[in-house]
Amino acid sequence: MVNKIFFITVLAGVPLSVVGRFMHWSEVLMFVIYCVTIIALAGYMGRATESLAIVAGPRIGGLLNATFGNAVELIISIFALREGLVAVVLASLTGSVLGNLLLVAGLSFFVGGLKHKRQEFNVYDARHNSGLLMFAVIVAFVIPEVFAQGMPEGKTMALSIGVSVILITLYLGALFFRLVTHRGVYQHKSEETGTHEEPEWSKGKALLILLISTGAVAFVSESLVHTFETVATRFGWSELFIGVIIVAVVGNAAEHASAIIMAYKNKMNIAVEIAIGSTLQIAMFIAPVLVLLSLLFQDSMPLVFTLPELISMVTAVLLAIVISNDGDTNWFEGATLLAAYLIMGIGFYLL
Amino acid sequence: MVNKIFFITVLAGVPLSVVGRFMHWSEVLMFVIYCVTIIALAGYMGRATESLAIVAGPRIGGLLNATFGNAVELIISIFALREGLVAVVLASLTGSVLGNLLLVAGLSFFVGGLKHKRQEFNVYDARHNSGLLMFAVIVAFVIPEVFAQGMPEGKTMALSIGVSVILITLYLGALFFRLVTHRGVYQHKSEETGTHEEPEWSKGKALLILLISTGAVAFVSESLVHTFETVATRFGWSELFIGVIIVAVVGNAAEHASAIIMAYKNKMNIAVEIAIGSTLQIAMFIAPVLVLLSLLFQDSMPLVFTLPELISMVTAVLLAIVISNDGDTNWFEGATLLAAYLIMGIGFYLL
Amino acid sequence: MVNKIFFITVLAGVPLSVVGRFMHWSEVLMFVIYCVTIIALAGYMGRATESLAIVAGPRIGGLLNATFGNAVELIISIFALREGLVAVVLASLTGSVLGNLLLVAGLSFFVGGLKHKRQEFNVYDARHNSGLLMFAVIVAFVIPEVFAQGMPEGKTMALSIGVSVILITLYLGALFFRLVTHRGVYQHKSEETGTHEEPEWSKGKALLILLISTGAVAFVSESLVHTFETVATRFGWSELFIGVIIVAVVGNAAEHASAIIMAYKNKMNIAVEIAIGSTLQIAMFIAPVLVLLSLLFQDSMPLVFTLPELISMVTAVLLAIVISNDGDTNWFEGATLLAAYLIMGIGFYLL
Repeated sequence: MVNKIFFITVLAGVPLSVVGRFMHWSEVLMFVIYCVTIIALAGYMGRATESLAIVAGPRIGGLLNATFGNAVELIISIFALREGLVAVVLASLTGSVLGNLLLVAGLSFFVGGLKHKRQEFNVYDARHNSGLLMFAVIVAFVIPEVFAQGMPEGKTMALSIGVSVILITLYLGALFFRLVTHRGVYQHKSEETGTHEEPEWSKGKALLILLISTGAVAFVSESLVHTFETVATRFGWSELFIGVIIVAVVGNAAEHASAIIMAYKNKMNIAVEIAIGSTLQIAMFIAPVLVLLSLLFQDSMPLVFTLPELISMVTAVLLAIVISNDGDTNWFEGATLLAAYLIMGIGFYLL
Repeated sequence: MVNKIFFITVLAGVPLSVVGRFMHWSEVLMFVIYCVTIIALAGYMGRATESLAIVAGPRIGGLLNATFGNAVELIISIFALREGLVAVVLASLTGSVLGNLLLVAGLSFFVGGLKHKRQEFNVYDARHNSGLLMFAVIVAFVIPEVFAQGMPEGKTMALSIGVSVILITLYLGALFFRLVTHRGVYQHKSEETGTHEEPEWSKGKALLILLISTGAVAFVSESLVHTFETVATRFGWSELFIGVIIVAVVGNAAEHASAIIMAYKNKMNIAVEIAIGSTLQIAMFIAPVLVLLSLLFQDSMPLVFTLPELISMVTAVLLAIVISNDGDTNWFEGATLLAAYLIMGIGFYLL
Repeated sequence: MVNKIFFITVLAGVPLSVVGRFMHWSEVLMFVIYCVTIIALAGYMGRATESLAIVAGPRIGGLLNATFGNAVELIISIFALREGLVAVVLASLTGSVLGNLLLVAGLSFFVGGLKHKRQEFNVYDARHNSGLLMFAVIVAFVIPEVFAQGMPEGKTMALSIGVSVILITLYLGALFFRLVTHRGVYQHKSEETGTHEEPEWSKGKALLILLISTGAVAFVSESLVHTFETVATRFGWSELFIGVIIVAVVGNAAEHASAIIMAYKNKMNIAVEIAIGSTLQIAMFIAPVLVLLSLLFQDSMPLVFTLPELISMVTAVLLAIVISNDGDTNWFEGATLLAAYLIMGIGFYLL
């Protein structure tokens, strides 16, 4: 059913995006069309990646998921960087972190908790992820912010590059740790899911779909970025709000859906892996890669967020760690995360 | 014994308060009389609430405790708001949070630990409370502070109202969670205390005493608020110090006493429930209710503390979470909390 | 082997230090000689303290270790204070906290983890230490910083003295707790290490060596402090960088080595005790003692760090707590701590 809707959306959305753009339809209308089309295309990218991951086995599959999991976000951001929209990119990174940590995890815990009284997930993974969240957001994002005060711009950029290289290195280290040196070490046997999963598509078909949908996302994203200014003016939204809420929700919609479905099916390990794993990928891989890529464009992007962005991420991480650290969830823990997201959403709207 | 002292204090304090006020006795003397009288009256309110709670059963009883637990604090604050003493109210909220988290919990752990080598309390409750402390203080108090910088006053108030409504909603959600959907889910059977408690007073008598003592507290509090300025000038105290230390201690004295007695009797679950539960009630219910009530007065109160107030609460919460998270206490953990309270007390005194 | 190198280094280093100083050799050369000599002398002080601790039994031994463990750091700092180098002393305290928490613990976890898949240490100790780290760094260091903004200097100093006295008192309380009232309470029997350790040196010899090497360290440290300015100018390093990285590494080199060796031998309890215990000694004993001692000199030292110093320590503590709290380590947790140290190192270098 969902797949059918996605199919029709793509079938209609891509041509409409092309036609509308060259016919100069209303930018607000095009903004909506672009957003919906990207969400549907992201669904295809996700399914293609999953099929490839099953074919390729857990190691290469883990790498694939890690690389393409936030590809949409990455593509939109690159086009935004090319337009010099550094503030929008930083805002959308913030939005992805908040969205995954509070909205996705919150909805998963809440919806799952409505059906199941108590849900559990691997407590070792929770702690491993807590350490990385602390490192990425509380150390690697906070330090450049504090040290950059009163630094000349060149040094701020040097610090940002250094931090980015360290973040990417540690992210690769984490993959190596989980997929090679400590695979299964912190896992109960019963947890091994999907012993004999069948891929949805064959290797060739999956590759083709991944290629085409990625290309389509790139085209639509490039168009989307140009509508931001008009939309911001029309609705009285700040660029910050567009980045933090709109881009983040569009870029992560596919993941949101699957995490909540997994939680409803009581597969909390996967739901948490999507929510927290995606947060870590944004913070430790996408963000630093964008910093490094920005050196190719006219306006380079330092790893320096605005204070509201940074404090939102820091408090979200502290809340998520305290709530997830015992590996036990219920509807109320979900509600707490959602309440935090709501507070920050109001804050960014009013800013 | 204690009850007798309270009886005599009320018997003497209330008339003295009335007479002294209309005879215009020295304001410093009246300040002392008011404070002592309120502490004694709060004792009566507490006992009446407890009797009613036993009669009404755990659900309604929980609601009653949740509503009347910090009634004194609420009453004093409303009168202070009517006088436009917004800063004093914010300070006394801070003082209640610090007082409950560090002073009450600290004294309980310390005094209990002098008698018992190790004391334990329900680790699930500890984690549930940790999540709420993080949410209330680290998210809901910090976000308005950070976002309000550079916001026009109207938006700050809008943000404060939004955060307040969310806080109250989640507080009610927490009651629903603990009293309805997950009652006893996270509890060991052996923990169920007081299977057949007898109420001290009959329903009618308890209601009458609650009504009269609440009325008396209201009258005395209204008088107390008018003495702040004189006392501040006479002793060289800042309004901040009066709010953070004096009002907070007077408003919470009754709870302090019972938490420490419970800890001494090794009933740590109840002692912690009083200390942390009261903190949460202040932060998630009293504070936002006061923000909303302040809209009725000339000076509305945003949920924006001074930086020393906010940082004190944030660090107190982090310390309390790390110390209480394992559900195991001893005298040294109590001493650590007390030492933190002392440091903040010196800070506010010097400010 | 290592002992032989230390022996030769001391035998050559001390005379070279004396001769070089009075012959006015190049200050950069002398800086290197002083640093190497102090590291070797610190090795002797450590071994002498250990021998005395074994002879004296666990209580007095614990006290001895607690007092002489960071004696080198203390001696260098006193001479720096006498020269009015308040900023260097605060920076070197910061560097010791960061060095022990991130570099020493990080290297221990990493090197130990290369040999052993999972290593464990006493989880009660980890939690006890977490509480103290929170108290010392997050409460006792943050509060003066925040409250001092806009305070006159005299009050800042008063607050610093108050906090220092409380820190020292609680540190002594912690020793009393661990060595007297709760000795062995939180310990598994199997953990009791070294039931019949033989001291390396006799009591008299150990005392003599401790006395002589302490005297030599004092002399060399006094000389070292005078080279800072020249070295800073020559290499373009800030005083902050010298304090945070150089002085901290020199002052703690001996401990670094033994912690890593212990981790390699899978004696994680001792490795963690050295890393975290030393951090706590710096924060709760050396730092406040230096504040009080500074009253004897012309420039008194408030307990107010620069913002980059404070935020580095706060984030390091939060990271270390989340990573160490489960009492389980592996190479990747070590790598995470080292990555955090590297980020801060780059930051201080660029500042």
